[in-house]
Amino acid sequence: MSNHTVTTARLSEAAGDLPTTTREIHLAARPQGVPTADNFALVQRAVPELGDGQILVRNTWMSVDPYMRGRMNDQPSYIAPFEVGAALEGSAVGTVIASKSVSIPVGSVVSHFSGWREHAVVDAATATPIDPDLAAPQHYLGALGTTGLTAYAALTDVAPVRPGETVFISAAAGAVGSVAGQIAKALGAGRVIGSAGGPVKTELLLNEFGFDAAIDYRAGDLAGQVAAAAPDGVDVYLDSVGGNHLRVAVEAMRPKGRIAMVGAISGYNGADGGPAPDLYLAATKELTLRGMLVNSYFPIFGDYIAKAAPWLADGTIRTKETVYEGLEQAPAAFLGVLSGANTGKMLVRLG
Amino acid sequence: MSNHTVTTARLSEAAGDLPTTTREIHLAARPQGVPTADNFALVQRAVPELGDGQILVRNTWMSVDPYMRGRMNDQPSYIAPFEVGAALEGSAVGTVIASKSVSIPVGSVVSHFSGWREHAVVDAATATPIDPDLAAPQHYLGALGTTGLTAYAALTDVAPVRPGETVFISAAAGAVGSVAGQIAKALGAGRVIGSAGGPVKTELLLNEFGFDAAIDYRAGDLAGQVAAAAPDGVDVYLDSVGGNHLRVAVEAMRPKGRIAMVGAISGYNGADGGPAPDLYLAATKELTLRGMLVNSYFPIFGDYIAKAAPWLADGTIRTKETVYEGLEQAPAAFLGVLSGANTGKMLVRLG
Repeated sequence: MSNHTVTTARLSEAAGDLPTTTREIHLAARPQGVPTADNFALVQRAVPELGDGQILVRNTWMSVDPYMRGRMNDQPSYIAPFEVGAALEGSAVGTVIASKSVSIPVGSVVSHFSGWREHAVVDAATATPIDPDLAAPQHYLGALGTTGLTAYAALTDVAPVRPGETVFISAAAGAVGSVAGQIAKALGAGRVIGSAGGPVKTELLLNEFGFDAAIDYRAGDLAGQVAAAAPDGVDVYLDSVGGNHLRVAVEAMRPKGRIAMVGAISGYNGADGGPAPDLYLAATKELTLRGMLVNSYFPIFGDYIAKAAPWLADGTIRTKETVYEGLEQAPAAFLGVLSGANTGKMLVRLG
Repeated sequence: MSNHTVTTARLSEAAGDLPTTTREIHLAARPQGVPTADNFALVQRAVPELGDGQILVRNTWMSVDPYMRGRMNDQPSYIAPFEVGAALEGSAVGTVIASKSVSIPVGSVVSHFSGWREHAVVDAATATPIDPDLAAPQHYLGALGTTGLTAYAALTDVAPVRPGETVFISAAAGAVGSVAGQIAKALGAGRVIGSAGGPVKTELLLNEFGFDAAIDYRAGDLAGQVAAAAPDGVDVYLDSVGGNHLRVAVEAMRPKGRIAMVGAISGYNGADGGPAPDLYLAATKELTLRGMLVNSYFPIFGDYIAKAAPWLADGTIRTKETVYEGLEQAPAAFLGVLSGANTGKMLVRLG
């Protein structure tokens, strides 16, 4: 910010000495299949000048999420690809240290989408002030962020849970899944089953997140395990993984069951996620399979936070975080979330 | 009916000389893959005695439908398998020639589910009187029967069409598809595209059934043809075939598009219907894929007939029939409907 100038007291503020340089993670090369550290580059650069209506945010936490793998490919999708040689993007929270916005003053804590960097120049209109007294800032990247909203929208709108029903949740120790299991219970589900990889995670599902049954998909025979955990079948399935999980779920669903397709992590790297589900069976059981993007639910984000913050405060929703320290660890955190190294929300703490 | 006795004028009636023997088609052996004539047997037998509450129906028309292939397998499904050595079953209409029912007198015309035979003894509670003045009896097996109801429910409830939208219909020259295209128009669809096999059928879609565009799937490059016919994408897809059609449709769907899965004829014989649809793509486009069984809509059957009979009378819905003559042709008619030999509703006229 060497050229930063304060033009008016109201429209432009700065908090103490502003940094002149910052660091960010660039996409160095597009991955083929599973990404590696070589696909990323740590780049030092000058902090860009603030324009009118912009804020400078010192990021304190950033999120790494499986969907980002899709943006690393150069192909049309619901969201533009990352550019090679430019900074990656994603959810982050931080403190405003300079402002040319009338709406967001210095000192505000905001969430925004310019993660993967230590300082971000953000249009104030695209940042959301958050209340750090309601919940710790990093919760706005997890249970109170898009992952929590994803779980809530999936179980209330995409594949609504009715009281007493049996709910099956994949990637249940992950950011969306761990919150989804607890929201399903809060919505009155009769039985909530989760799948996760390995005994440490399944133990956590039962003893920390309140699941009624836990399946270790790495132990094999997923179909048999699901049948044992849900002998009367599954009414609602939240699919974050696709592949074999989705196929097994279609087989286990009760008539008129509902499946929310919120991701397909097993296929993100282009690997074969297993045989496709039997859609003839889905037709004859009158199943509904419905995809969702969390962006469609941004209009209810405020309502969701108002409902979920008390759940977080009173223990209805308990959370776990896996935290990597420092921007230089962000690529490792991202590779970790793709391979299931996280428990609960995978986060990177910055600065 | 040699032992038939008239006990009271009101409760038991008979119309003239009743037959003592009749003919029916049995399942002789379960097919492996594509059925052949050897899987069927024409059997002569005595007409069973009428019990209280039953009617004897001289069938005049019977239906052959693709879903019947599924019932020929010995495996659990939404409907019980046919039994080897017993008569097949399916929709039929006919005239009541003897009755031990107070509700359905001799002379009534009824629809029921004991097709594949020239005379049927039916519990009156499972037969539905039809009005032959409203429409010819065979329409109650087609546009006013379960095939018409399937099309209507698919486009109003399973995958609702909104005014101005683009609708794609597979097997569009078939019984469900030909009615569905015209119902889509009646519901206000902006553009209706159908696929069928061969130029005779595609010509019919355009000139008889009022489709805006017709695709000959046998000409190859289904994806390219769909893209050309629906350059802005598809909002609603009615899937009767599964396989490659379903995969191509998922690719062509606009965001938040809806797919009604009413059948999967390409997979009924266990053959590979082509690559599975990309459900990751379906998730990111927020598509809904929903299966249906027409039985779930029987509660609105009367309402549907009341709505569709005027459509049939005023030409909003035009129909075609492919008619095979005589019970002994029923197996050939059924094999024909599986291979696309029909245009519009495939029917067998009896006796």
